[in-house]
Amino acid sequence: MFDTDLFDTDLFDSDGAIYMGSQRDPAGCRVGLFGVPYDGTTSFRPGTRFGPAAIREVSSGLESYCPQLDRDLEELAIADLGAVEIPFGAPEPVVAAVKSATEAVLALGLKPLMLGGEHSISSGAVAAVAARHPDLVLVQLDAHADLRQEWLGAHHSHACAMRRCLEVLPSQQLLQIAIRSGTREEFSELRQSGRLVAIEQMAEALKPLRGKPLYLTVDLDWFDPAVMAGTGTPEPGGFLWRDFAALVEELRHHNLVAADVVELAPMLDATGVSSVLAAKVVRSLLFLLDR
Amino acid sequence: MFDTDLFDTDLFDSDGAIYMGSQRDPAGCRVGLFGVPYDGTTSFRPGTRFGPAAIREVSSGLESYCPQLDRDLEELAIADLGAVEIPFGAPEPVVAAVKSATEAVLALGLKPLMLGGEHSISSGAVAAVAARHPDLVLVQLDAHADLRQEWLGAHHSHACAMRRCLEVLPSQQLLQIAIRSGTREEFSELRQSGRLVAIEQMAEALKPLRGKPLYLTVDLDWFDPAVMAGTGTPEPGGFLWRDFAALVEELRHHNLVAADVVELAPMLDATGVSSVLAAKVVRSLLFLLDR
Amino acid sequence: MFDTDLFDTDLFDSDGAIYMGSQRDPAGCRVGLFGVPYDGTTSFRPGTRFGPAAIREVSSGLESYCPQLDRDLEELAIADLGAVEIPFGAPEPVVAAVKSATEAVLALGLKPLMLGGEHSISSGAVAAVAARHPDLVLVQLDAHADLRQEWLGAHHSHACAMRRCLEVLPSQQLLQIAIRSGTREEFSELRQSGRLVAIEQMAEALKPLRGKPLYLTVDLDWFDPAVMAGTGTPEPGGFLWRDFAALVEELRHHNLVAADVVELAPMLDATGVSSVLAAKVVRSLLFLLDR
Amino acid sequence: MFDTDLFDTDLFDSDGAIYMGSQRDPAGCRVGLFGVPYDGTTSFRPGTRFGPAAIREVSSGLESYCPQLDRDLEELAIADLGAVEIPFGAPEPVVAAVKSATEAVLALGLKPLMLGGEHSISSGAVAAVAARHPDLVLVQLDAHADLRQEWLGAHHSHACAMRRCLEVLPSQQLLQIAIRSGTREEFSELRQSGRLVAIEQMAEALKPLRGKPLYLTVDLDWFDPAVMAGTGTPEPGGFLWRDFAALVEELRHHNLVAADVVELAPMLDATGVSSVLAAKVVRSLLFLLDR
Amino acid sequence: MFDTDLFDTDLFDSDGAIYMGSQRDPAGCRVGLFGVPYDGTTSFRPGTRFGPAAIREVSSGLESYCPQLDRDLEELAIADLGAVEIPFGAPEPVVAAVKSATEAVLALGLKPLMLGGEHSISSGAVAAVAARHPDLVLVQLDAHADLRQEWLGAHHSHACAMRRCLEVLPSQQLLQIAIRSGTREEFSELRQSGRLVAIEQMAEALKPLRGKPLYLTVDLDWFDPAVMAGTGTPEPGGFLWRDFAALVEELRHHNLVAADVVELAPMLDATGVSSVLAAKVVRSLLFLLDR
Amino acid sequence: MFDTDLFDTDLFDSDGAIYMGSQRDPAGCRVGLFGVPYDGTTSFRPGTRFGPAAIREVSSGLESYCPQLDRDLEELAIADLGAVEIPFGAPEPVVAAVKSATEAVLALGLKPLMLGGEHSISSGAVAAVAARHPDLVLVQLDAHADLRQEWLGAHHSHACAMRRCLEVLPSQQLLQIAIRSGTREEFSELRQSGRLVAIEQMAEALKPLRGKPLYLTVDLDWFDPAVMAGTGTPEPGGFLWRDFAALVEELRHHNLVAADVVELAPMLDATGVSSVLAAKVVRSLLFLLDR
Repeated sequence: MFDTDLFDTDLFDSDGAIYMGSQRDPAGCRVGLFGVPYDGTTSFRPGTRFGPAAIREVSSGLESYCPQLDRDLEELAIADLGAVEIPFGAPEPVVAAVKSATEAVLALGLKPLMLGGEHSISSGAVAAVAARHPDLVLVQLDAHADLRQEWLGAHHSHACAMRRCLEVLPSQQLLQIAIRSGTREEFSELRQSGRLVAIEQMAEALKPLRGKPLYLTVDLDWFDPAVMAGTGTPEPGGFLWRDFAALVEELRHHNLVAADVVELAPMLDATGVSSVLAAKVVRSLLFLLDR
Repeated sequence: MFDTDLFDTDLFDSDGAIYMGSQRDPAGCRVGLFGVPYDGTTSFRPGTRFGPAAIREVSSGLESYCPQLDRDLEELAIADLGAVEIPFGAPEPVVAAVKSATEAVLALGLKPLMLGGEHSISSGAVAAVAARHPDLVLVQLDAHADLRQEWLGAHHSHACAMRRCLEVLPSQQLLQIAIRSGTREEFSELRQSGRLVAIEQMAEALKPLRGKPLYLTVDLDWFDPAVMAGTGTPEPGGFLWRDFAALVEELRHHNLVAADVVELAPMLDATGVSSVLAAKVVRSLLFLLDR
Repeated sequence: MFDTDLFDTDLFDSDGAIYMGSQRDPAGCRVGLFGVPYDGTTSFRPGTRFGPAAIREVSSGLESYCPQLDRDLEELAIADLGAVEIPFGAPEPVVAAVKSATEAVLALGLKPLMLGGEHSISSGAVAAVAARHPDLVLVQLDAHADLRQEWLGAHHSHACAMRRCLEVLPSQQLLQIAIRSGTREEFSELRQSGRLVAIEQMAEALKPLRGKPLYLTVDLDWFDPAVMAGTGTPEPGGFLWRDFAALVEELRHHNLVAADVVELAPMLDATGVSSVLAAKVVRSLLFLLDR
Repeated sequence: MFDTDLFDTDLFDSDGAIYMGSQRDPAGCRVGLFGVPYDGTTSFRPGTRFGPAAIREVSSGLESYCPQLDRDLEELAIADLGAVEIPFGAPEPVVAAVKSATEAVLALGLKPLMLGGEHSISSGAVAAVAARHPDLVLVQLDAHADLRQEWLGAHHSHACAMRRCLEVLPSQQLLQIAIRSGTREEFSELRQSGRLVAIEQMAEALKPLRGKPLYLTVDLDWFDPAVMAGTGTPEPGGFLWRDFAALVEELRHHNLVAADVVELAPMLDATGVSSVLAAKVVRSLLFLLDR
Repeated sequence: MFDTDLFDTDLFDSDGAIYMGSQRDPAGCRVGLFGVPYDGTTSFRPGTRFGPAAIREVSSGLESYCPQLDRDLEELAIADLGAVEIPFGAPEPVVAAVKSATEAVLALGLKPLMLGGEHSISSGAVAAVAARHPDLVLVQLDAHADLRQEWLGAHHSHACAMRRCLEVLPSQQLLQIAIRSGTREEFSELRQSGRLVAIEQMAEALKPLRGKPLYLTVDLDWFDPAVMAGTGTPEPGGFLWRDFAALVEELRHHNLVAADVVELAPMLDATGVSSVLAAKVVRSLLFLLDR
Repeated sequence: MFDTDLFDTDLFDSDGAIYMGSQRDPAGCRVGLFGVPYDGTTSFRPGTRFGPAAIREVSSGLESYCPQLDRDLEELAIADLGAVEIPFGAPEPVVAAVKSATEAVLALGLKPLMLGGEHSISSGAVAAVAARHPDLVLVQLDAHADLRQEWLGAHHSHACAMRRCLEVLPSQQLLQIAIRSGTREEFSELRQSGRLVAIEQMAEALKPLRGKPLYLTVDLDWFDPAVMAGTGTPEPGGFLWRDFAALVEELRHHNLVAADVVELAPMLDATGVSSVLAAKVVRSLLFLLDR
């Protein structure tokens, strides 16, 4: 379907809607958006599998202009490549498919922006990006540490997302911003490793990394349930838009090379405001990526 | 139905419920509350037509006493005149009907408090009030600039609400409080005109206007979606009750002559808390108007 | 975007998802599916603008095979052309745009299947189809007679849908199947005209029309609210799937040349089963059209 | 507020909306509609206190004309008197207030139509009506027998509604239509008393009572949960609109002197179709009463 | 926790609520109820994993007496053993755990009644029961054929439930009641095998099996979405309570030795009526099993 | 069912689920959790009867470890005793049953943690605890003053909760934290009594009470509706998790001897985040009590 011969379209299902202001064809674009509608083996309705579609659907309710960054989506060049074709069932082949898809996006010269789906998909994208950027630094927004070795018998569970990412991250540089939930073991590691960054130190902790390639993974449950009820494991005590905007302010000075936005479960918030928040997060990241 | 012969009841449909502590008959009242159940130009998620009824319905869940202002609804004299009879379809005749209704309310010696409905109705009320108060100053709470010349082919769209108001506002004095969404053109105008007031400057910007007749238009999407999910175009990054309370604190020293509260779409927030917030905003405005 | 040079893509917005088993490109297809996300004249509960997207979204939850008709969507050749680009506000230009879009679909040699949106759009499509099939017979499934001359000031209201269709239907042949709601005047006309067909006489009334070109307009509120809660003016006493299946059984012997499925308001039924029923109705019509 | 001096308005709160086509002032009317927003003894899922308001709110979505009865609400003379003022807490004083209110309605020459609220209120209205019609026959539509002597410690519980009615019904004539749930003791009594009427025998059982004064009490859970999800104790295996329409057909030949419609809990059915069904039931009863 | 030494309680988690009228301790019981909260690898909210808890929760809203069967739960001896402890992730170990749990229930002399969870769990229970009853006949209520060899890469998917059951059913006797959805291949097999039973032939097809040990598997999506919206893949055209009651009527003459009720996804139907229907189905099966 | 002979199990219904990490048997425990599913006097939106079950249900979605307090539920010894058996109807016997149940919990040597239900139950628990701790100090988190002498005819209404508590509190020491709603009379008393504590003075006001036995009553509507939509009388302008965490920080230095968490109405917030917040509040209190 694409004019770009370089692109293996078998990796993507392009039947769905596209994000506001984007185009299907990657030719001439600088950012490659794609979704991974994966949340386990449940087959029809529940969960984060509906996240990418919901983000696209509500995106047109936003303005294309961002007053904070003084930029407009109409000036960008974004390809929305659709949904990664994923095998059903266990997460391992899904992570592999995500890795292949991310590699394909990078091969097209696009900066990847992945929409989840559950957090377990991140390690596939991080692996592909880290292969191109050996000094890649990973920045995590999340309510949960996600550092379990395994959970409920699963190695690639969303509760193990950062553990798996660390395994494919050569730099071992991971900043975990204001994590507020985990096991005693996870918090012990968080504190000892120096990776846990308090919300007040966020900008300060990032500043030394200016210039380095960054991958930002946004587990939307980092936000407070007040503004993000539509996620599987809401955790009271989270953050608001202004906190994210402060991060964006610092990231303007950084080299963001890839990002993902995961764990939106739109059906859990019938008001739709969770999806709108996710879509606005995506808008900010598009501006940060397309430079 | 009313004893007051001065009042043309053909303008209003009085079949519905009334706001807590009000009465249907305008005789002896100082404030005239009325609804405009119109959402004809809503572009994203409709439903503000049900706003006035929802505000009235939940009002009885509030106390009649306000600790901030140390006043009680039982001391006020409020007429709830019902719903403006509006023709269906295009917005122009609706705006005209709103203007006639507001004139009738003013003719009764009542200060108008209008419940929307979508924001496009405001220019009708502003026109009627400005005819009586040529130095009327308009204060806007809103997420969106609403300064488009037209939108999706409509001249009287909710996205053009302030543009239309400016056309009927002799003083050209408009304060736009902490607008956070708009086009590049709108923000350019906002900044150049000096009309954009940051949330921190709100009280300071209003102080010089003490004594002047004020019209306050509250587009409820000014509030954060966390507390106001029930609106058509929710925009992350908004404000909380304490921010509105700070405005009320300043408005105690002002001459508020009219107000409206628009864009509540109650069906979009099944918890009902959006409607309760709207009803509490209305309660504060009733105290500010009835003086 | 399409390879087909004949097709004026300015008429359609193709940013959205497609129906299961269809393709965007009309080349080689026999049926042309398109949506009209319009609900501007809805008087009670709005939201049909989201109907086409919801039908597409849930379509993949159905099997592609239909045991009643023993056919599979995989054998069909369906183009899903996206959404008709509609001007905002009054219904007249929307109806005109629908007419143009339907003409474009017919010009491509496709049988049109339109997804609403509110019922007022039907007269645009009927006008285009009747221009090609002067002996076109219109069959209406609906709870309401829709025969008002105008309603709440609007000439092209959904409550006037059939009145407008009759004005563009040369044959004046209209079958109104088991209408159960209307004004005294409408029922008087229904009974005198002989157009009202009881549910038990449905097959019998249709039989003499075998061979004639048929246009089937399905206002989904024909179904009982038990199975179709997601519609703006639900009317108790409606019909179930087996009643629709009986109609399909008869229509196998007919020459269905066009159809529409309107009045799905998916947000009003959070369970999603209304959307699934609508998608299954569409599936049946696709089989009947692609012959 | 009323012109009618005979009427003690302290009994009613008239702040709310009115049913489509009715008026507040009882002067010249033949039917008196009123609500009793009480759900104090509800044991499973509360919320019937919101029933009367919901029925009025959705009534305007119906047509005023009824094709089955060929009559129009516009020809009727209905007073909607508002809500009975009820003390809070235990049911006994509520039942007493209902009795007084019903007596006041009867004193005005109006036939009472009461909207619940839970079923325990019926005995108050039945007592008042039976005092005027000693040969009053009570007809009950209900899923549950409601014949307990007491339940969970309460004498006037909704589960005892018919037991209490029998105590104030001189004729002891009670027809219980197609009850499908109860205790062994209740079913034993139902069968031995001959009061249980199968759905197929409904018309036949009623025919001998033509001419006698009838009171119809409609517990909406008689309907199937498919069409009446909005009730506290939904019971599978219930009835559809056509079954109610069959009853209406027979009641055309009867002398209906009073009725109630109870147990709508509108918040439990967010689609609103339960409320619409209840409002249509009320419409039919209004036609049957206003003769 | 149990007094019964025979019972390996490691198989069950007994922290949850119990079904109305049951007890935790299996001593002296004849039926063993247990839940399998499995719907794939999603970890917190979505789906059928919440089915067993919802059925127990709403059970107390039903009467303990069943007028159809003239029996009362208070006369039964039911143990509600809680939830099977299941490993997380792939379905194979879940099916194995279900088999072990069912064997443990049988070892206690209890007839098993399993609550799902998704349909893929049935083959585990069928395997255990068939080991004790080599001539076991399986009766399936379902919208879907569930005869796929595998689906979306999974061998033990819910879409393969009956295929897997056939593999462990020595008699190969399977009755598939009124299946209405499937692939062409599935329907081809259904028709050729003679296993497809039309709803009208249900009793007739079962009669010859009187005396044989029966296992009834109820996929709740057999019911129409009108009464069972709370299921993952609702399929229009299903059945009502009276159809199930007709089956119960025939099963009174049969030797039901085990049963399961699966695919309730209670969050998908906020009205709760799906859960109530499921709980009433369970009540009927308890009466049929405890003999 | 319990091994502990001291315990009168007739007081509790133990059929329901238990809180994460607790056990049913009180032997060896230090904290006794129990629910009171009562909402008989709720005036606006009912449903708190479902609060205790919802808190238990979602508790397993939280981590057992609390990073703020650096403690894990697995180290605690909590008995979840189930639901207090309450008579139905008027509140007086419910309050008496709560008192008896609390006394039984204290007799077992357990610190009571009660889950409501509506706030009127608190005085029963306070009475029992104050009998053991004559110098008991009561700390109230609430949106409402709850100091009415009676409300809508009820002496033990939720709107009178603190008035009733004061009657059984020998020390008359009550701290009312940041109350934001009430009548003029209530605020007059609040201010004159010195009991009203501003949110900024919370820690300071509590410090002098270190060492004294404290009873903390948490009416969840103290929180902002943004994070606690699931409560009957939501009041804008409330507090967030961080405010509660600040209170917990101070309470680490106190002698908390009992607590309750009331007014969760889970059905009013379909997202479930209100229940999750309530469950996290309970988790913090369990850590504070088990010392």
